[in-house]
Amino acid sequence: MTNPFTGLSAFPLTPLRDDRVDERAFIGLLDRLVGAGVDSITALGSTGSYAYLDPDERARVAHLAAEHAGATPVFVGVGDLRTSRILKHIDAAQDAGAAGLLLAPMTYQPLMVNDVVELFRTVIEHTELPVIVYDNPGTTHFTFTTELYARIAELPGIASIKIPGIPGEPSEVAKRVASIREVIPKHVSIGISGDAYGAAGLIGGCDAWYTAVGGTIPGPMVKITRAVQQGRAADALAESERLAPLWELFAEFGGSLRVTAAIAEFLGLVGARSLPLPIQGLDAAQRARVAEVVDELQLDVP
Amino acid sequence: MTNPFTGLSAFPLTPLRDDRVDERAFIGLLDRLVGAGVDSITALGSTGSYAYLDPDERARVAHLAAEHAGATPVFVGVGDLRTSRILKHIDAAQDAGAAGLLLAPMTYQPLMVNDVVELFRTVIEHTELPVIVYDNPGTTHFTFTTELYARIAELPGIASIKIPGIPGEPSEVAKRVASIREVIPKHVSIGISGDAYGAAGLIGGCDAWYTAVGGTIPGPMVKITRAVQQGRAADALAESERLAPLWELFAEFGGSLRVTAAIAEFLGLVGARSLPLPIQGLDAAQRARVAEVVDELQLDVP
Repeated sequence: MTNPFTGLSAFPLTPLRDDRVDERAFIGLLDRLVGAGVDSITALGSTGSYAYLDPDERARVAHLAAEHAGATPVFVGVGDLRTSRILKHIDAAQDAGAAGLLLAPMTYQPLMVNDVVELFRTVIEHTELPVIVYDNPGTTHFTFTTELYARIAELPGIASIKIPGIPGEPSEVAKRVASIREVIPKHVSIGISGDAYGAAGLIGGCDAWYTAVGGTIPGPMVKITRAVQQGRAADALAESERLAPLWELFAEFGGSLRVTAAIAEFLGLVGARSLPLPIQGLDAAQRARVAEVVDELQLDVP
Repeated sequence: MTNPFTGLSAFPLTPLRDDRVDERAFIGLLDRLVGAGVDSITALGSTGSYAYLDPDERARVAHLAAEHAGATPVFVGVGDLRTSRILKHIDAAQDAGAAGLLLAPMTYQPLMVNDVVELFRTVIEHTELPVIVYDNPGTTHFTFTTELYARIAELPGIASIKIPGIPGEPSEVAKRVASIREVIPKHVSIGISGDAYGAAGLIGGCDAWYTAVGGTIPGPMVKITRAVQQGRAADALAESERLAPLWELFAEFGGSLRVTAAIAEFLGLVGARSLPLPIQGLDAAQRARVAEVVDELQLDVP
């Protein structure tokens, strides 16, 4: 059986409408992902706005994801600022039928290394579900060292590490991935994030790609992933290169979330203003640029 | 009548015991503050762990603060990641009898300037209560510019700006405070934070000191504040200088919260492990250092 923590894991948005989860639109996104043949779906990732949603909303989203994903494994983001709430999110994800959990060490007060180790220890003692360690310093402001990856990955129940994108030449990417691989158990997969770095990360030896925009536009990301898996690295890089205008929007407009939401809104997959306030989303001029790129790259095909 | 957003505002901890608010210990802290004659109490500031508490817990803490503060005005922190929850916290603070609100732009996804302006606009349209703008980049990772202070301070209902500590010579501090004063309306007070910078900030022209450790050890902070108000700047600086070993602990042990909680725990004002997990608090060796400093500086007198 294939390790479920490999291949392409797509992170759908959790669209809001009038400050409530737009369940119909969310189900539509799930259907797209299943249809595109992604290897797993991670609900309530950063792209799924987990940090902004109430416990009840998160439980409901986890249920919907598991219900509509069919045979596709569903992982559920359970991060929160407080440990006791994380444990409640875990129970809800388990009830929903999640195949795994995604946990980022959210911060308000900066966390110490020991706080994070004890957090993961508490979590793996609480659940039988496999856990993805979520290293996303751009949102959590906590920075993992390779040594800390090793300390946490040796805990039983850790299944994967979601690492930030690695800029640089292919040889540097491979070197970085190998340096992590060297210190973690064999059964723990390494997944790349930062969509612009997905192709290079997979080619460089990552087992998985945790994709944000692929939760809305799965087609090109599936294509890239399959190309790498079939040994066609050049094809994967060519497709990623073709998407360069999209990666440029991420860099220019403050990350993937606002751009991904604008794409979904432009394509009518979700309603207008689908992000949780206070996040306003892109302005009119930025949205016009997004629309141009969607047309130019033909992103309207799932 | 004195502007309530001036003088010393003390930020009590919200101590937990077994992951629940320790109401008795919290009331004890309030009593100390009233007894010490602070000018206001800000409940649910960063030091009050607002970011970690559930809406019900926050409403209860706001009620307790207003109930036990007597004639001392109580301000309540209402920050949250989602605007709709902020509005609910505001309603609860208003019900409790708060005299003002403290609002920091919490982030998970980085916020844009426009997000923050619209957030404050939404809040002041929702409430009649005066609002303190809370600029705390160490926890929110949002950086205000002086220009943004000006844009937000011109909104009706903004009463004060809580600025981060200003390192440097007294002349530089005064210059920085004057540069803010120049662009904000006269009725908006400027309050310094970062306890090591409190005395210098007040001497440099700040109207208020929003003190973290002064929510547990109010005595020395009241002394410093009164000295500045009575024109005895040298006395204020001497007292702040006397507390240098305490400021050094803040710098060395990752900020004021963990040290303040350790002081309160050492003095028996709150139970052991009073911070919300995953924050473990100081380790045994660090706690021993804290105990030494408490004894050396005679911080056991309120």
